[in-house]
Amino acid sequence: MTETHVDYSLYVLTDAQLSRGRSHRQVIEAAIRGGATMVQYREKNASTRKMIDEALELRDLCRAHGVPFIVNDRVDVALAVDADGVHVGQDDMPASLARKLIGRGKILGVSAENVEQARAAIADGADYVGAGAIFATATKADANKPIEIAGLLQIARVCTIPMVGIGGINSSNAASVIRAGAAGVAVVSAIVSADDVERAARELRKIVDTAKENL
Amino acid sequence: MTETHVDYSLYVLTDAQLSRGRSHRQVIEAAIRGGATMVQYREKNASTRKMIDEALELRDLCRAHGVPFIVNDRVDVALAVDADGVHVGQDDMPASLARKLIGRGKILGVSAENVEQARAAIADGADYVGAGAIFATATKADANKPIEIAGLLQIARVCTIPMVGIGGINSSNAASVIRAGAAGVAVVSAIVSADDVERAARELRKIVDTAKENL
Repeated sequence: MTETHVDYSLYVLTDAQLSRGRSHRQVIEAAIRGGATMVQYREKNASTRKMIDEALELRDLCRAHGVPFIVNDRVDVALAVDADGVHVGQDDMPASLARKLIGRGKILGVSAENVEQARAAIADGADYVGAGAIFATATKADANKPIEIAGLLQIARVCTIPMVGIGGINSSNAASVIRAGAAGVAVVSAIVSADDVERAARELRKIVDTAKENL
Repeated sequence: MTETHVDYSLYVLTDAQLSRGRSHRQVIEAAIRGGATMVQYREKNASTRKMIDEALELRDLCRAHGVPFIVNDRVDVALAVDADGVHVGQDDMPASLARKLIGRGKILGVSAENVEQARAAIADGADYVGAGAIFATATKADANKPIEIAGLLQIARVCTIPMVGIGGINSSNAASVIRAGAAGVAVVSAIVSADDVERAARELRKIVDTAKENL
């Protein structure tokens, strides 16, 4: 799925802790109604059985709406539910191995916080780079120092594949991420913690679309 | 690897918390010297990258000694390091799915605490059943009520594939597990927490061998 028609504009990641008691299904359904173009299931603490059950439900939901469904870190879960792809961070499976296991027909995303990691991701067969964390975020306790827009611009310069910005992105800064060269914004709390998820997605999607039109 | 020459006699599981500061490599090397016939890498909390690094080291060690190397739960890690197989519990990936992902040439172990689970494991393509927890154990905080030798005997009656006993097995009760029909004993603390790992393995292996001779 190195296909050019993947739309990275609004990439929503799940987070069970930040969803304020709402199920992944509720959150993702509303996010897709609002305009999410891509979904990533991210879960670090559940049993593998529970991850597979949850991922299967979200995969069906995404498939029904024609939205690519990606699994974070867990290649086994991605394979088990026949996800559209997998996203690996620097502490996850090496990207080249992940590519080998999921095959060429699936989407491979790789996190990069600097130019070296972005170059390596491309060499390892990534379809897109998740660049960040751009801004300070409470979502990832282990996050390094934010790379800011300056760091994003550096990565954009070497990125020969789509780059998605991630980390503390919300309606106040999403346009700057697109202007720095990102194909889309990957968001967690700005969507899953919103009072009105659909409305938050719609607003963010509009900001991304407008920023792209004005490039 | 539904091969009949797999020797389940002394099956040692890793446990980073119970190894008293010794590395997996140190513990498993000593266990193999003492007579371990099979090794399982079990790690629930590390990053995927760390799991792959550790599993790779143990796989090389086991391969050098001709000892089958199995990965607990994580089919992705098993595939990444080309382990000899995977062991899944009831909260892990469904056994039939695990079989599909690892292929027919690998060993598939499935945990069962009762006759129904053992029958399902066999139907799902397991090569062996891990029956237990037999005795009370501090290793698994989430363990259910021990099945005791009585429960093991029930499972043995329906087991058309090798059955390995697990849960609180040590030198004082290992022979009873073999006499109940187990092809071997799976142990954690009795080996990895021992003052002298090699010696503990040698003693346990001898008990298993003797019990088998006297069947």
